[in-house]
Amino acid sequence: MAISIELICVGTELLIGKTLNTNANWLAKRITSLGGNVVRITVVRDDIDEIASSLKDTMERKNDFIITMGGLGPTFDDKTLEGIAGALRRKLTVNDEALEMVEAKYRSYVQEGRMQRFEMTSPRVKMATLPEGAKPLPNPTGTAPGVLMKYERKTIISLPGVPSEMKAIFEGSVLPMLKKAAGDLTFFETSIDATGVMESELAPAVDRVMHNNPYVYIKSHPKGAERIHRIEFHLSTTADSSNVARNRVSNALAQLCEIIEKKGGKIKTTHTGN
Amino acid sequence: MAISIELICVGTELLIGKTLNTNANWLAKRITSLGGNVVRITVVRDDIDEIASSLKDTMERKNDFIITMGGLGPTFDDKTLEGIAGALRRKLTVNDEALEMVEAKYRSYVQEGRMQRFEMTSPRVKMATLPEGAKPLPNPTGTAPGVLMKYERKTIISLPGVPSEMKAIFEGSVLPMLKKAAGDLTFFETSIDATGVMESELAPAVDRVMHNNPYVYIKSHPKGAERIHRIEFHLSTTADSSNVARNRVSNALAQLCEIIEKKGGKIKTTHTGN
Repeated sequence: MAISIELICVGTELLIGKTLNTNANWLAKRITSLGGNVVRITVVRDDIDEIASSLKDTMERKNDFIITMGGLGPTFDDKTLEGIAGALRRKLTVNDEALEMVEAKYRSYVQEGRMQRFEMTSPRVKMATLPEGAKPLPNPTGTAPGVLMKYERKTIISLPGVPSEMKAIFEGSVLPMLKKAAGDLTFFETSIDATGVMESELAPAVDRVMHNNPYVYIKSHPKGAERIHRIEFHLSTTADSSNVARNRVSNALAQLCEIIEKKGGKIKTTHTGN
Repeated sequence: MAISIELICVGTELLIGKTLNTNANWLAKRITSLGGNVVRITVVRDDIDEIASSLKDTMERKNDFIITMGGLGPTFDDKTLEGIAGALRRKLTVNDEALEMVEAKYRSYVQEGRMQRFEMTSPRVKMATLPEGAKPLPNPTGTAPGVLMKYERKTIISLPGVPSEMKAIFEGSVLPMLKKAAGDLTFFETSIDATGVMESELAPAVDRVMHNNPYVYIKSHPKGAERIHRIEFHLSTTADSSNVARNRVSNALAQLCEIIEKKGGKIKTTHTGN
């Protein structure tokens, strides 16, 4: 059974269009490649009530993991843990393990000459102030630890918004957890480009291919400029073994190509892999 | 009063990480520049129940406009209007005005020699099949019209996922509506880069500047690689006039720069505009 994951991205910069949400894209791709199933992404601003209410809604839906990104830093504006604590009705307290991690970081900054003297100011202690029962996840490239929480049957993980830190904590601490939960599932995808046919001409035949290949997800992406019809078809599946995944996609692809060529279209393979 | 807008992005390609959500980013930036307030973005897969349930949740929140993107095309997989019809409990019927738009498109394709003969197949009629009471919005660069619906006090707008079509319908039909609703509001933003200081050192002072400038949104984005501390500060506001907006940001910026320099940091202006 594939595990279901929801992402919550916290950051007003995403809602004013200042920042392109490359974090969600990276994480969605990474989770999919591990055989996980990202079922929804929600983007909210740096606001405690918005964070809390989006988490509550997410917890009512069917999913195994909820991963938040952003809002773990030292500033006033970093409100993710406050929002989560509110939604879970847990107190925020200084977590000893997290405090050690943050202290060790600042001590290393002093040793490296990046800071003049060691001092645990309140914005620094803030990064070690976690909802009760939470476990900090080491941050190899920055100061704010990631945070792991369990609530009933769900696992909630909070990662920083700085891309390098988000990725490092994911690879170091979250990936092993997801791999264990996902088991031996594997994802396989391929893309082809079809030219010389219109999407609406192919639609009924594509529906038939989808119907004949229920485990393969087929999606057409029209790419045509005004005078050229170009459609990208993306085929993907998640299966217990890479052989099964590969065979499923190959079968569906062969059927699809036959149809496109019958309609007078031309095909180019653009990407295959997992 | 700023108008509140939620975006719902429909597309499994966004949840498997195949496609970066540049549509949401473009639209968020565009709406913000018009003085509108994007309060949440939700990304769901091509699934009728997911589309319907996310729309229902969105309609229960406080917002004036809900804009969906994606899932209006001719294929089996384009399910947005079916999901919306379900959520609003409205029937899907062929809309005469939409049918004329779609027919005119395919007739023009025949005239231009892009299609051999005119034929309104069922996938083509599908693009003109809208929830009852909906109004089609002309699509200058593609076939599927945009869709405008009113429900109680909310306006629901559906745009295609193909970026050029989404943008063209937005600029032609949606922008005038939002401008009218937003009134004379204007957005102004500026960014500076501070080097030589740490985010946690500046945090309390930045909080004071935010407190002193309640209408200015200030956010710090740490950009530092391992050995260099670089923080981007982004200041923005929405106001009744561009003068007011500009002055608000300038005042906050002056206070912020003074603090950064007091702490030994260096400043570079990176971007100013609206």
